[in-house]
Amino acid sequence: MAARILDGTAAAQAIRAELAPRVRAFTERAGRTPRLGIVLAGHDPGSEIYVRNKLKTAGEAGIVAELVRIPEEAPVEEVLAAVAALNARRDADGILVQSPLPEAMGADAETRVLDAIDPAKDVDGFTPANVGRLVQNRPGLVACTPAGIMELLSREQVAIQGARAVVIGRSDIVGKPMALLLLHRHATVTICHSRTRDLPAVARTADILVAAIGRPGFVTPEFVKPGAVVVDVGINSVSDEALVRRLLPPDSPRLAAFAKRGSLTVGDVHPSVSEVAGALTPVPGGVGPLTIAMLLANTVAAAEARLRA
Amino acid sequence: MAARILDGTAAAQAIRAELAPRVRAFTERAGRTPRLGIVLAGHDPGSEIYVRNKLKTAGEAGIVAELVRIPEEAPVEEVLAAVAALNARRDADGILVQSPLPEAMGADAETRVLDAIDPAKDVDGFTPANVGRLVQNRPGLVACTPAGIMELLSREQVAIQGARAVVIGRSDIVGKPMALLLLHRHATVTICHSRTRDLPAVARTADILVAAIGRPGFVTPEFVKPGAVVVDVGINSVSDEALVRRLLPPDSPRLAAFAKRGSLTVGDVHPSVSEVAGALTPVPGGVGPLTIAMLLANTVAAAEARLRA
Repeated sequence: MAARILDGTAAAQAIRAELAPRVRAFTERAGRTPRLGIVLAGHDPGSEIYVRNKLKTAGEAGIVAELVRIPEEAPVEEVLAAVAALNARRDADGILVQSPLPEAMGADAETRVLDAIDPAKDVDGFTPANVGRLVQNRPGLVACTPAGIMELLSREQVAIQGARAVVIGRSDIVGKPMALLLLHRHATVTICHSRTRDLPAVARTADILVAAIGRPGFVTPEFVKPGAVVVDVGINSVSDEALVRRLLPPDSPRLAAFAKRGSLTVGDVHPSVSEVAGALTPVPGGVGPLTIAMLLANTVAAAEARLRA
Repeated sequence: MAARILDGTAAAQAIRAELAPRVRAFTERAGRTPRLGIVLAGHDPGSEIYVRNKLKTAGEAGIVAELVRIPEEAPVEEVLAAVAALNARRDADGILVQSPLPEAMGADAETRVLDAIDPAKDVDGFTPANVGRLVQNRPGLVACTPAGIMELLSREQVAIQGARAVVIGRSDIVGKPMALLLLHRHATVTICHSRTRDLPAVARTADILVAAIGRPGFVTPEFVKPGAVVVDVGINSVSDEALVRRLLPPDSPRLAAFAKRGSLTVGDVHPSVSEVAGALTPVPGGVGPLTIAMLLANTVAAAEARLRA
């Protein structure tokens, strides 16, 4: 029996619909729309797509999103100056600096830029102050992808309290905040990673399994307890045909799309997991849309909090 | 066979000995000794003992520790003013506000006070900024008890990479930072708590088991995989004779101390765990002395960083 599909697109749509009256109320009270400043340095093709998506979705939600472009070859100081200008602007509620920054800006560029963002406007939830507040289970801006997953689990009425949760991946932007959010909802949480011994056996203890490692099709049925809820955070672009054939059943309609475009977006979870899991987020259409919806939700929350302050 | 005893007193002594040349070097370069400001509001008997210990140990390490007393009935603003004064003082390197604050100061007093401490002087590692830096595995001031446990494990050459670690307890000052520190040393970490189902079975998966729940003798042999390293963070004062008799073997020399004083300090781990564990921190003489040693280490590190800045 195939797993129930946890529809991220529908949940994201519902989240955005619930934001609409809040955006209207804010606009009325503040005399202006909420505003998000996006800083994009260079021309990374993936970043261009993400940013275009964010601008479009924000606009549809009644949020003014403004793109600040920094030349590829500029020093990191130009990004810092753009952040400082957005920090200072009274009508800017959210600030997002698109990752990755150009390599030439130096290994510590991302950290320097993050540390410069006013935590009250940090809609990605990446600044140390917001991460610390998350650990302490205090109100604050939480990283969009894990926050979106919590929204999805909640809307799909997945029982979290007392559940065993296993998070594969320990990144700052997904794995660690995800583990903390599940912990605060009273799951018993295990964080796994590349050094974990007998990873499939550990993963099989999970009632809720979150895969956030960036390896196409890595999580196979042997990782999954029958009936478990599996959340696939991976967004991997695959252009290797042999790999695509290992990841898709021979009758998959997505093979035609691959033949046409030469690449395919696949998750960290192998499609055959659907035969074992109780519920599963698809890729695409699972976690991805939720991330952008939560970016908008964070922007509205930041705008509201700034109005109260 | 009884477990190897992990001697926290000896490790703490070694940590303090290693600080001595750093204190001397700082004092020479800065023209003054490192300085720690301790703010104590009210007269909680436990706090009085802790603070006395901290003052004494700091003095022995060549650190000037200054006690700022706030009356029990004072408003929280007086604590905030004391913190602001220490933030502003150029010769104050570390600031510590002893918990708990008097109840009359309000439910949000601890949070307000913590948020007021300059993160560069936050030698308890409790401010959101330092907690966030810990999550991001960046240099910063880390909560003393978990930092001390990592020092002990390291000095006792306990293998952490690839080990299964289980932390029982999810407090902001021990459980959560402990889990993060073990994770960054490449353990596979599980955090358990009061809602965890079948806690003994989960605990038995641990190569390294940390008990930080504040319940005397809670961790019994059924929680422990044979040969595991068990770290007992509990410091529980017990005055119930029946409980003491359940916690100590009938021939324990500590029974005489209990008869004399009417109370006894016991850990979260039942002494019979010693028959199953491979290694065990005693109470007293385990984690307790390490916490104070790390407070001094954090003070020296803060002083050094402020001299560089």
